[in-house]
Amino acid sequence: MSTKKLARGVALVGAGMSKFGAFKGKTSRDLFVEAFVEMLASVDKPFDPKSVDALYVGNYSSDLFENQGHTAPIMASWVGLTPIPAVRVEDACASAGVALREGILAIASGLCDIVVVGGVEKMTDLPTEKVTDTLATAADSQFEIPAGFTFPGFYAAMATSYMAAYGATPETFMKVGIKNHNHGSLNEKAQFGAKISTLMEVRKASAAKKGLPIPEWKDELEFLKDERANPIIAWPMRLYDCSPVSDGAAVVLLVSEELAAKFSDHPIFVAGVGQASDGALHDREELNSIPSARLAGQKAYEMAGIQPKDIDFAEVHDCFTIAEIIASEDLGFFEKGEGWKAAEAGETASSGKKPINLSGGLKSKGHPVGASGVGQVVEVWKQLRGQAGERQLPGKLKFGLTHNVGGTGQTCVVHIFERRD
Amino acid sequence: MSTKKLARGVALVGAGMSKFGAFKGKTSRDLFVEAFVEMLASVDKPFDPKSVDALYVGNYSSDLFENQGHTAPIMASWVGLTPIPAVRVEDACASAGVALREGILAIASGLCDIVVVGGVEKMTDLPTEKVTDTLATAADSQFEIPAGFTFPGFYAAMATSYMAAYGATPETFMKVGIKNHNHGSLNEKAQFGAKISTLMEVRKASAAKKGLPIPEWKDELEFLKDERANPIIAWPMRLYDCSPVSDGAAVVLLVSEELAAKFSDHPIFVAGVGQASDGALHDREELNSIPSARLAGQKAYEMAGIQPKDIDFAEVHDCFTIAEIIASEDLGFFEKGEGWKAAEAGETASSGKKPINLSGGLKSKGHPVGASGVGQVVEVWKQLRGQAGERQLPGKLKFGLTHNVGGTGQTCVVHIFERRD
Repeated sequence: MSTKKLARGVALVGAGMSKFGAFKGKTSRDLFVEAFVEMLASVDKPFDPKSVDALYVGNYSSDLFENQGHTAPIMASWVGLTPIPAVRVEDACASAGVALREGILAIASGLCDIVVVGGVEKMTDLPTEKVTDTLATAADSQFEIPAGFTFPGFYAAMATSYMAAYGATPETFMKVGIKNHNHGSLNEKAQFGAKISTLMEVRKASAAKKGLPIPEWKDELEFLKDERANPIIAWPMRLYDCSPVSDGAAVVLLVSEELAAKFSDHPIFVAGVGQASDGALHDREELNSIPSARLAGQKAYEMAGIQPKDIDFAEVHDCFTIAEIIASEDLGFFEKGEGWKAAEAGETASSGKKPINLSGGLKSKGHPVGASGVGQVVEVWKQLRGQAGERQLPGKLKFGLTHNVGGTGQTCVVHIFERRD
Repeated sequence: MSTKKLARGVALVGAGMSKFGAFKGKTSRDLFVEAFVEMLASVDKPFDPKSVDALYVGNYSSDLFENQGHTAPIMASWVGLTPIPAVRVEDACASAGVALREGILAIASGLCDIVVVGGVEKMTDLPTEKVTDTLATAADSQFEIPAGFTFPGFYAAMATSYMAAYGATPETFMKVGIKNHNHGSLNEKAQFGAKISTLMEVRKASAAKKGLPIPEWKDELEFLKDERANPIIAWPMRLYDCSPVSDGAAVVLLVSEELAAKFSDHPIFVAGVGQASDGALHDREELNSIPSARLAGQKAYEMAGIQPKDIDFAEVHDCFTIAEIIASEDLGFFEKGEGWKAAEAGETASSGKKPINLSGGLKSKGHPVGASGVGQVVEVWKQLRGQAGERQLPGKLKFGLTHNVGGTGQTCVVHIFERRD
């Protein structure tokens, strides 16, 4: 399993997404169409969708969420791409990131020149408790689930282990949530577009309106430490440490490097790709790091020929706030055990040295699980092209990274994108 | 969507499968391990599984069948392939064929040299009526299922249409079933390893033993026309026109063309690959042909630079007997409307001019849906290498074809394999 080069380069020339949220009455196909239409509008130069060679669709479990399998050709049909090959890729919450990698390989293989990669999930048709059960099928049904774990429990175990090892506290995690909500407040596509401070003021105003005692939270941390405002889900993970249950879709357009200029004034190139797998959580030597993320990151850096310090910003898989801190270490942005200090010091905020989750991350933007990996790429596309509006990072940006995890790291896939012009 | 060449060639250097059948107490992972171990033993020269670069797993719905998603890294873990990238591919009953194509693209892309591709499904844990519902999720849940269709109904509609158009009769379909059971009686891995004539004699003997009147079936056709022996499922499809509900797994090993001789004394090369998608059945212009199969076949032939007449034998997707006849036309083996005559004339039997489903096909060998596409390749591997035992075709064989369908053709994927030595 050595690091090899792609037989030919691949460029990103379009990206779009639906709004993420809870959309009663909309199905996966509706959301996919929304994202596809936005992707079409994002392509700088005119192109004929009939020239697309293949469609890849990341989707975790339309089977269980919508009682619909064989999703890829349905999506192809709804966006008018029939009869091209349509492939669904499933690797739990990393489904879309892995679909993206398959799309890249399809172009590198020589068999395709133009590929659409999307991700979609419609989760809110099920009652919330059934959603948690459905997501739990991404863990090991023979070993992990009978032990009583669902995902909040898994990540809570990682959080307690991390706290014990390095000195982080539940407040550390709250600060990650506050930061991502701040970022997401500038993202019109985010499911939760409000800052935590705004939510706090809303609660105060609501109490005042009802003539109830007004809670005396002096800041966001006090608000988040109050169990009435932020109930414990699986200690130390509270409500605002958990990404939400979401509906949404995201779609990107990839072309071979030679074609990039025909599609785009400012194409974004795929500089590095890395993916790795792992067994169940109980087989790990420690819980403070996700080995597949380290490996996937290493491979992506090697292919790109760069170091973690070269990354201008990253979208990482913050399904829970602890996951973002661990990711920031696994990806080499900070030393092991130092990620929580960097988070507390504001280094991962938009104003910091290594901005993480400018989109709001899964936490604030939403986490339609099979779409999230491509949703991350939409943010990278916008930031690298200077089109991220109010949340645009200043200065010239060259490298953006995405990090997409399935389960507790049974899958991790990392992509590095580069602007060359 | 033009036909392009792979950036580098790919060879098949190993293949194995579990027995197909109903295995109480076995899970997908057990079946996958069985197939993987047989694949390892089939490789001519010693090789280190640690050198494998990626795993692709075709699986239709472990979600619904076993309440287990994120199947690929679990399979990787159980066969000792962790931490390589592990990708689940889903395209209904074409899942494994599409996974195979992804494995081929991964090697052609330059990113992988050695790839394991498997398919697996464990269907018999659910009661039969729930299996039919689960399979129905491969159709369109918005349009097809509310109309009352499940898959026997879809294929029955195609069969009645085909009979009306071309003059085939229900007996035509029965003859396909008899032929595939004859073939399967020589396959030790088949779920139903008995000829229809044997089943008939067993029924007669059983009646005699119980002192009941012995049915006076003079031949297999009379047996199959008797509703007591062969009940109607969805007219004209009867029990013995339908592939069974099955558990099973199949695994193959692919390497880059340059490496083929290091792994195998008689490698089999991937000569052609084709895949296409389609919308729901009601959008088709006619029901007597599956457009995605025509298109996938064309692409595979173009890439291989050969004609249908050059194919020595084929494994086609006979989920229902009518499907085999339609496939034999869509793949260009016979003119449109002529496939049923060829079947009746014995041209598709092992002794005929264009042998189809020497393994017994899905009908007799079994149809663990997410495994079938790779199961077909196991037969091609054996036949082209002269290792098919009692069912070995005589003479020098050069080209074998596999045809794997998802739904009623919302996906079709065709592969052409070539022996060059």
